[in-house]
Amino acid sequence: MRCRLIPVARTSLVSLRRWGSVGSRQQITRRTASAETISALKELLGDRLSTSRSVLEQHGTDESYHDVTPPDAVAFVESTEEVTEVIKICAATRTPIIPFGAGTSIEGHISAVAGGVSVNLSGMNGILKLDRENMSVKVEAGVTREQLNADLRATGLMFPVDPGANATIGGMVATNASGTTTVKYGNMKTNALSLTAVMADGRIIKTGSKARKSSAGYDLTRLLIGSEGTLAVVTEVRNCMLGLLPFRVLHDHHLHLQVELRLSGVPEAEKAMICSFDKMKDAIDTCTTVMQMGIPVARMEMMDENVVDAVNRYSNLNNSLRPSLIIEHHGSANELEQQSSVVQEIARDFGAMDIEVASTSEDRKRLWSGRHSVWHAVLNQVPGSRGFSADVAVPFSKLTEAVVETQQDLKTSGLFGTIVGHVGDGNFHVLIPFTDDNKEHLGRMKAFSHRLVKRALACGGTCTGEHGIGIGKMEYLPMEHGGAVDFMYTIKKALDPQDIMNPGKIFYANDRSN
Amino acid sequence: MRCRLIPVARTSLVSLRRWGSVGSRQQITRRTASAETISALKELLGDRLSTSRSVLEQHGTDESYHDVTPPDAVAFVESTEEVTEVIKICAATRTPIIPFGAGTSIEGHISAVAGGVSVNLSGMNGILKLDRENMSVKVEAGVTREQLNADLRATGLMFPVDPGANATIGGMVATNASGTTTVKYGNMKTNALSLTAVMADGRIIKTGSKARKSSAGYDLTRLLIGSEGTLAVVTEVRNCMLGLLPFRVLHDHHLHLQVELRLSGVPEAEKAMICSFDKMKDAIDTCTTVMQMGIPVARMEMMDENVVDAVNRYSNLNNSLRPSLIIEHHGSANELEQQSSVVQEIARDFGAMDIEVASTSEDRKRLWSGRHSVWHAVLNQVPGSRGFSADVAVPFSKLTEAVVETQQDLKTSGLFGTIVGHVGDGNFHVLIPFTDDNKEHLGRMKAFSHRLVKRALACGGTCTGEHGIGIGKMEYLPMEHGGAVDFMYTIKKALDPQDIMNPGKIFYANDRSN
Repeated sequence: MRCRLIPVARTSLVSLRRWGSVGSRQQITRRTASAETISALKELLGDRLSTSRSVLEQHGTDESYHDVTPPDAVAFVESTEEVTEVIKICAATRTPIIPFGAGTSIEGHISAVAGGVSVNLSGMNGILKLDRENMSVKVEAGVTREQLNADLRATGLMFPVDPGANATIGGMVATNASGTTTVKYGNMKTNALSLTAVMADGRIIKTGSKARKSSAGYDLTRLLIGSEGTLAVVTEVRNCMLGLLPFRVLHDHHLHLQVELRLSGVPEAEKAMICSFDKMKDAIDTCTTVMQMGIPVARMEMMDENVVDAVNRYSNLNNSLRPSLIIEHHGSANELEQQSSVVQEIARDFGAMDIEVASTSEDRKRLWSGRHSVWHAVLNQVPGSRGFSADVAVPFSKLTEAVVETQQDLKTSGLFGTIVGHVGDGNFHVLIPFTDDNKEHLGRMKAFSHRLVKRALACGGTCTGEHGIGIGKMEYLPMEHGGAVDFMYTIKKALDPQDIMNPGKIFYANDRSN
Repeated sequence: MRCRLIPVARTSLVSLRRWGSVGSRQQITRRTASAETISALKELLGDRLSTSRSVLEQHGTDESYHDVTPPDAVAFVESTEEVTEVIKICAATRTPIIPFGAGTSIEGHISAVAGGVSVNLSGMNGILKLDRENMSVKVEAGVTREQLNADLRATGLMFPVDPGANATIGGMVATNASGTTTVKYGNMKTNALSLTAVMADGRIIKTGSKARKSSAGYDLTRLLIGSEGTLAVVTEVRNCMLGLLPFRVLHDHHLHLQVELRLSGVPEAEKAMICSFDKMKDAIDTCTTVMQMGIPVARMEMMDENVVDAVNRYSNLNNSLRPSLIIEHHGSANELEQQSSVVQEIARDFGAMDIEVASTSEDRKRLWSGRHSVWHAVLNQVPGSRGFSADVAVPFSKLTEAVVETQQDLKTSGLFGTIVGHVGDGNFHVLIPFTDDNKEHLGRMKAFSHRLVKRALACGGTCTGEHGIGIGKMEYLPMEHGGAVDFMYTIKKALDPQDIMNPGKIFYANDRSN
């Protein structure tokens, strides 16, 4: 038997929070796994079925502000066929199934709100087949993003979606993850073209194909991506698109060409810079102008002054304490030069100061290490705190207004909060450190979050750009999609008539009659 | 009342083909619209409800090889609310509803195989709201691609998806259309982010949002795109993404910047070239190498020698009678220079001859006018013929093999056929002119098409890259997607329990039990 380590990303066992219900509107019936179900699973999996209290707690805990809600058992599965067997056993007694990857989601997706069995896919971490010619890879769902990229390093290819956390690819499928590089490379719907999934009756399906595009039938791939485990357990990404690493190593049989290309300066490179502004408005206006003019960027991240301060302290950096943009370009040396100088011109047009270009690889790494540490840097500001992260996306035309109003709202609410954003996608987060004991603060935080979502929806935006609905945003889904939610629920009911697939997520079942 | 012209694209009334059933496997029950239904629709629409024989025939005829299968009536609708009323009237008697745009689809999507009412959306051709700052537009489903681009010309923006035919945007949503520019700008799933649709019970939903990305709930937008009218009638694309026109006019408030940028040579431009090869294999290998090296192309089209010959005759051109590639780049002048020279180097590496660069706008237009006339140029080779178009897509690694085998198969079958391809997406078509009277030829053609699809599926590809399933490829959907088709059908049944939305398309209902 392979070693059954709990994923590294989940090490910090937070202080035990309240078990039980997750909110007043959700009256979900608990369907505890019966002794017979547990026993059947035990027979199937042996010591890969755990009911130890610490394992259960760990599987009921994500990185969010939501209550710890442990499952009744955890099944450490090793194959798609085993997932089928687990689902069949659970389906027989209408026991809920909650897929679990690395536990890095932050809207309570892995909470066992109706009880049931957590299906831990981290043991399915095989990188099954690298297909260099098609620049794609077939992976099991439990492969983590960092594992995949480490494995790919020597090939000159990379998996481009980067949500920050070291999530599993399966988890990233579940929430339709994106991140800093999405402005250039897209999100999971762009990059996961074909899946293996186990449906609520245990049947295994393969969606999509190895072709880059298709018009053959309903798009089950993109229906499952972002469905948060409520329709199926995704066990493999069969056609996971890869990008070329800057300074890539080309295929052997084109090595002579590669040499020529290197000599002519064409191979891809990357260039990053940071610039700061007096006012947040100027930073965002720079961003929207760059996007509207169609200047290619590979990443474009906004940080408010609080974030810069936190990051400076945490990573021992010395960035100017002002609203800042980090902008990165990927391309040939000439393209970089040109794109970067145009962006600098636009930034200066909006009053940018301290434009610092990271020309060496070390400078670039230092720059991004700051951005990548934001979550921990911000939490570090408030000892003993956990983090709440809001996540909205709005159209470009409303981005400045939405961010500036949000900044003002933070101030008015007396909350210490920080704003970071994948602004090239119109997506931004507000990170607020909090402690469980301060109920009044918690209340203000939730009220602020509520106003933020309403603000984003009023702009024609979305209540979640990349984190998903989980249990944290269920009330906003009908606000955003109105009657369309009824048809989402019709699909849920049709594909999972017993409501065993991650029940109590995405929809308030009680609100729906059809 | 607005003028009710039949769309221009549908002018050539072909000789009347056989009415009736569409194949031995499909035993679909005809549900003719009753006199009461017709009368209720007449009351709703007045003279915008037609039962004239010529109008019915026209609405049962697309540009494919499929039989003419007219509906019982045609409803020329003018608003989303009217579509709701039409659907409610039809639903009351389980009368089929077949959405109709420009009639340019080629897999029998608009055939009234079960009778019923054709809903002609060409009168819903309003360009409702241009949103320059978000580079998007809200359009009614009946707007045609060319109409939209003509309307946009002065803005510096363009709608980038180009399937060749002057289809309606709604029709392009129905089949998930793509085309020559997809390699750079994506297909309809990339560019139509938010829809208004009327469901089978008449309810109107709005899917998606104005944000560029979202993780909020199931992706109904991409479920409806490519569903060929079998789940809903799409009446609007609310957030239809636009691209920047090369040599674009920038927004007024950035005019000073634009001037600077123009002076520094940054504004986008386009550059196209054609090169020919001794063997098809070399052309395709050039294409796959360009893609694998990540060199940006805006279009990359392959034509076999038969196509070049047809196009030369039809458009009075003088291209070398050899397998050829047309490659276009969009970018800044410097980028173009660099990208084009690398591609030329790769092409020469594979033995390219006659590399002709179209440097002026006129040269470029002439080059593409040839490619755009392929359909008519090929049909022109066989007087009185209609066209059959195969449409498969395969992974890059298999593209050369698939195309070369297909070329050999054409020869062995004694068929006059031509191969063109959006090879940057791994997608290619075989166009075969045919006449109805030669049954033996028709049989050979169908057998060839069958082998082509099986070849593509064996490569891990898809039976349709961009045309859709319609009635022409229903037998291939289960070959491609296996048991996943059962779950597609489960969704169909859940959202359209009466089977009134374009019935008899995509699925063989009789094959499905769940």
